[in-house]
Amino acid sequence: MHLKIINPNTTVAMTEGIAKAARAVAAQGAEIESCNPSDGPPSIEGWYDDAIAAAAVMETIRADDGRADAIIIACFGDPGLQAAKEATTRPVVGIAQAAMTMAALIADGFSIVTTLARTIPISNHLVRAYGMEHYCRAVIAADIPVLMLEEEPQKCYQLIEAECRQTLEKDRAGAIVLGCAGMSDTARRLTDSLGVPVLDGVACAVKLCESLVGLRLSTSAASYPQPLAKTYAGKFSSLSPK
Amino acid sequence: MHLKIINPNTTVAMTEGIAKAARAVAAQGAEIESCNPSDGPPSIEGWYDDAIAAAAVMETIRADDGRADAIIIACFGDPGLQAAKEATTRPVVGIAQAAMTMAALIADGFSIVTTLARTIPISNHLVRAYGMEHYCRAVIAADIPVLMLEEEPQKCYQLIEAECRQTLEKDRAGAIVLGCAGMSDTARRLTDSLGVPVLDGVACAVKLCESLVGLRLSTSAASYPQPLAKTYAGKFSSLSPK
Amino acid sequence: MHLKIINPNTTVAMTEGIAKAARAVAAQGAEIESCNPSDGPPSIEGWYDDAIAAAAVMETIRADDGRADAIIIACFGDPGLQAAKEATTRPVVGIAQAAMTMAALIADGFSIVTTLARTIPISNHLVRAYGMEHYCRAVIAADIPVLMLEEEPQKCYQLIEAECRQTLEKDRAGAIVLGCAGMSDTARRLTDSLGVPVLDGVACAVKLCESLVGLRLSTSAASYPQPLAKTYAGKFSSLSPK
Amino acid sequence: MHLKIINPNTTVAMTEGIAKAARAVAAQGAEIESCNPSDGPPSIEGWYDDAIAAAAVMETIRADDGRADAIIIACFGDPGLQAAKEATTRPVVGIAQAAMTMAALIADGFSIVTTLARTIPISNHLVRAYGMEHYCRAVIAADIPVLMLEEEPQKCYQLIEAECRQTLEKDRAGAIVLGCAGMSDTARRLTDSLGVPVLDGVACAVKLCESLVGLRLSTSAASYPQPLAKTYAGKFSSLSPK
Amino acid sequence: MHLKIINPNTTVAMTEGIAKAARAVAAQGAEIESCNPSDGPPSIEGWYDDAIAAAAVMETIRADDGRADAIIIACFGDPGLQAAKEATTRPVVGIAQAAMTMAALIADGFSIVTTLARTIPISNHLVRAYGMEHYCRAVIAADIPVLMLEEEPQKCYQLIEAECRQTLEKDRAGAIVLGCAGMSDTARRLTDSLGVPVLDGVACAVKLCESLVGLRLSTSAASYPQPLAKTYAGKFSSLSPK
Amino acid sequence: MHLKIINPNTTVAMTEGIAKAARAVAAQGAEIESCNPSDGPPSIEGWYDDAIAAAAVMETIRADDGRADAIIIACFGDPGLQAAKEATTRPVVGIAQAAMTMAALIADGFSIVTTLARTIPISNHLVRAYGMEHYCRAVIAADIPVLMLEEEPQKCYQLIEAECRQTLEKDRAGAIVLGCAGMSDTARRLTDSLGVPVLDGVACAVKLCESLVGLRLSTSAASYPQPLAKTYAGKFSSLSPK
Repeated sequence: MHLKIINPNTTVAMTEGIAKAARAVAAQGAEIESCNPSDGPPSIEGWYDDAIAAAAVMETIRADDGRADAIIIACFGDPGLQAAKEATTRPVVGIAQAAMTMAALIADGFSIVTTLARTIPISNHLVRAYGMEHYCRAVIAADIPVLMLEEEPQKCYQLIEAECRQTLEKDRAGAIVLGCAGMSDTARRLTDSLGVPVLDGVACAVKLCESLVGLRLSTSAASYPQPLAKTYAGKFSSLSPK
Repeated sequence: MHLKIINPNTTVAMTEGIAKAARAVAAQGAEIESCNPSDGPPSIEGWYDDAIAAAAVMETIRADDGRADAIIIACFGDPGLQAAKEATTRPVVGIAQAAMTMAALIADGFSIVTTLARTIPISNHLVRAYGMEHYCRAVIAADIPVLMLEEEPQKCYQLIEAECRQTLEKDRAGAIVLGCAGMSDTARRLTDSLGVPVLDGVACAVKLCESLVGLRLSTSAASYPQPLAKTYAGKFSSLSPK
Repeated sequence: MHLKIINPNTTVAMTEGIAKAARAVAAQGAEIESCNPSDGPPSIEGWYDDAIAAAAVMETIRADDGRADAIIIACFGDPGLQAAKEATTRPVVGIAQAAMTMAALIADGFSIVTTLARTIPISNHLVRAYGMEHYCRAVIAADIPVLMLEEEPQKCYQLIEAECRQTLEKDRAGAIVLGCAGMSDTARRLTDSLGVPVLDGVACAVKLCESLVGLRLSTSAASYPQPLAKTYAGKFSSLSPK
Repeated sequence: MHLKIINPNTTVAMTEGIAKAARAVAAQGAEIESCNPSDGPPSIEGWYDDAIAAAAVMETIRADDGRADAIIIACFGDPGLQAAKEATTRPVVGIAQAAMTMAALIADGFSIVTTLARTIPISNHLVRAYGMEHYCRAVIAADIPVLMLEEEPQKCYQLIEAECRQTLEKDRAGAIVLGCAGMSDTARRLTDSLGVPVLDGVACAVKLCESLVGLRLSTSAASYPQPLAKTYAGKFSSLSPK
Repeated sequence: MHLKIINPNTTVAMTEGIAKAARAVAAQGAEIESCNPSDGPPSIEGWYDDAIAAAAVMETIRADDGRADAIIIACFGDPGLQAAKEATTRPVVGIAQAAMTMAALIADGFSIVTTLARTIPISNHLVRAYGMEHYCRAVIAADIPVLMLEEEPQKCYQLIEAECRQTLEKDRAGAIVLGCAGMSDTARRLTDSLGVPVLDGVACAVKLCESLVGLRLSTSAASYPQPLAKTYAGKFSSLSPK
Repeated sequence: MHLKIINPNTTVAMTEGIAKAARAVAAQGAEIESCNPSDGPPSIEGWYDDAIAAAAVMETIRADDGRADAIIIACFGDPGLQAAKEATTRPVVGIAQAAMTMAALIADGFSIVTTLARTIPISNHLVRAYGMEHYCRAVIAADIPVLMLEEEPQKCYQLIEAECRQTLEKDRAGAIVLGCAGMSDTARRLTDSLGVPVLDGVACAVKLCESLVGLRLSTSAASYPQPLAKTYAGKFSSLSPK
């Protein structure tokens, strides 16, 4: 089993943190390869960052050597997820869909705790796109810039925990979905502290990829046929579908 | 890893088939324990069978020795799923939710192929309960009694395949979800023949349970608190929550 | 007109209270027969109790002598409702569906006031299953164990009334749906006190059954065909469909 | 018990047919009063007719002497239903909501058979407004002008029956909802012929009104407060709320 | 370009205010014709007023001389909108649909601020009818009778602004939709004060009508065929479709 | 008035066609500026093309000189629409949302006719994202590669017209939404031939932009705050938000 995790932003420290979170849960003997685009946003905190990161993710997928059995897109906006499904015949899992999917198996309802309030609409969009409206009790923001997760982890932990406690009581959530790949390392501590399942999308995506690979299931070519061959112009020419 | 698969009906041959399907995909070293209630319906082909089977499943769960890490309910109606989540602190996965959940990761839409037309409303109910309305293109019946799957596998395969071909074309489904645990052994052959992913809920549930256990995630006690202690009367007294 | 009311729990005092509530509204000359299973949970306060009670309800229906024109399942979780529709050709009405159905005729929106918070997910599930999402403003709990309704009626009344006042103001509900058969006798007093319609499912179900019988309408055999004949094993053998 | 049935169109023969259908199912001793506006459309076959009929219905309600315990609006578009709920403190039931409400109690899904195709959008609008989307399998038209129901009943019956057979098979409906008050007298014959419940809104509304009155439930004043007093100008002055 | 704005109530001062608001945004050279029915309610503050106003609007449309290129119904309940679409082959736009439509183009979500709380259900009904559930964050009332908008504009402004500030913060709305034609003149001032777009339905409808006319698009005759010719009785005879 | 139309693909002939379609409907005196990215896909026929085109659109927006009053994204997948709303304070309209929005004003339901079947999921996604599920009757494909629209216009017209006729009859659509910017020049001819409104998103977007500018409404900064300043790496560095 070989899984490739793409951190859609360019911050290497975050890529390493994500890889660590992935390895912590990966099946014995599984190889976890992590990478991030060399080009693009250092953090993804809105629709604009997300759009550029989606293109950057495509570069990473096109540059892939084909060794991985499945691919994870490790940003809670799932940037480029549908496009990636066309670009490779291997399974591709986004961490937002992964976390919500797993949460729906173990809780009657969940709240998503995200970083900055400006990303709430992106989460709401995904909740709706994935049919999770009746599971999602609330999307709330801890008011943390993404990179602050790296820089001030203890302070961030406290902000996140406070938000979680509030939504658990007020919104009757039965689980917490962490709304950023950079929050992975808080999941275990939060679970212990809050007494409800706290789901990290990176870990969930690793397990879902292992599952799909184990089942020899891949993305449906009927739903996601490979891109038609054409020549892209200019700086995107290397991304041209063959 | 130790998974317990409960076939909610009492047909031992079917339990064995389900166990075989589970073992075929289980992680190396995983122990697959299968069982079925000693009491209850030999097959589940409607709401009435399903209601009795749900109680029978509770008997099986209450009789459990606690060795298993997670529990699978292996009938496409997911009988007793919510109840089972209250009855144990371990993860419980139903095969209908499992198959639809995995299908949503790899296809834009799926069709469910079930046994008898009389079970279509149960599938429709679950599609709605799980928020899968926009993924589910159609629920169709191959007009096969459940136990005929054991007795005339080749004829059943042909009926199922014909239904699949029809819905793939007519309903623009990108994947097929098999709507009965007894169809497990057709999944691989159908996948090869049809050229789209064909999902067997038993296999999907095994992988989702392995995933939840690997992530140390269990059912939310906030969503599914354990049953309040009380004494049940008569033939159900052995099921009394303590 | 002969209506049979099944209290799905085994508490005889509650069965009597339900019968009294039913008789108070039944048409002149109507015979109200009430019963409860001899086996099963003494109260239904969660999914697990509900699953066992559903099987117990089936026993009661199978033991029925066929004199009743229609059957009422008198627990707000509507345990076994769909199964019961298969098991008899007579109309079967659950009190949750009955109360919500009637509320939707007279109010722009309603709140459900239930017993313990742990039953809220069951109500939410039914709201969704019956298409009442846009009528239901809130599901709230008065934090009352079911049997306390029998034992401390005055204290319970006050708790329920306080919850009702709060949701009427905060959630802009136009009516209250009582979320437990044991609350039947508070409906009239609450209506007078709160100034909005307060709906008791038992009373509503009596009237809907009278309506269906009066219209010579029964459950659709196309939607709910009778269970296929088969032999159930063990303690459920008496429930085998013929 | 005194029920007032308002036929929103001005065709007296149709009012009489509706009254006859109502009396056929009314409780013993119930008084059925029927009427129609003196002013307005002779038949309601679209949004425009419906809008004028709604105002005409208000005239009828304002002219009411207050003897009736409940009021029925007997046109499948439920013209003026919400307005009427404000205009009187007594229960008001529309036949479309009544028929769909009763159908949802006895079938997994229903089809609505209406008169002219041009009225299908009105039915679709009501299906959505009442939360019946997942019960309603199809809305189909028998291609019959409303008044032809009076003039050529036998031919109409055959057209309706043919449409019903088609939708029962094609759309897997478990019941038929008749989409016009003028079809009332076909319900029994169709039920016998088709083998599934066929619901006439007039009959359903009679029973629901009897139910509401029997339960001493009226329209919520919180949801439908009475119109604010004001003076209407011109030809509508007699309708001014006091 | 010639647009006809129908104020569905009979208050001439309000008609003039609406016309002024329309002229302020109309394209250069556009003729804005405004009118109100001579008969009907002086203000529309509930379903009952709305039903009568709908008929009054039909009178106005039937009396129209055909010079206008498009018609606007300028009351936030959109009274008679569907009927009007049948009654003329020209485009007809309601201000509620117009404002919500434009808001959905520029904001992730909006709140509707209406006059009296009793009109909230009407707004909720339209939100659902137009598919705006996921855009609409809240419908709130400033507790202002409609005609007070004319009489005490400054006091009303303050009440409206206070409500807006509250919903912007609490409900995370990105825009405000004004829920009454009489609020048109507050839109600009509120936009400047609140820092989010504030949408007046009158202005939006003017622009949408100009757009439809400019595109030579009219109401679909397939969706809204003209009313069938028939003779209406009594005071509605002048409204008979030819 | 100055509108900038971005054709997200790099095919200059198509950009010119789009500009021509825009100019044909633009208000007198309006300046229509059209452009396409120099880099990126020559046509957009799937999720992958769409993701790259979204980034290319951002390049175009960032390179903009600020003279335009509003911006149109002229590809039916609305690539980069949300991101563009963050990237500029001016209104941004996508042609898919524009066409569906206008269609909902004039028809009870519409069908979308797109190019290749592989783009149907993208349209379905947008239908759901924009809340148009109950307006959209069907999404169908004429089986035309995007660039064939340029090369074989007459043959394409016939294929499109045939698909339209079929869906109008079968799906009871009241209008047609053209699912590709390259189909703009067929709209008028199809309208005349089919007798129902046929909506071209380019034309609709021009009018909606004129409307927003005329109303001095811009994208909500509360919903779409400008991207946080950060430095993008590599080939995307020119897109760094300031």
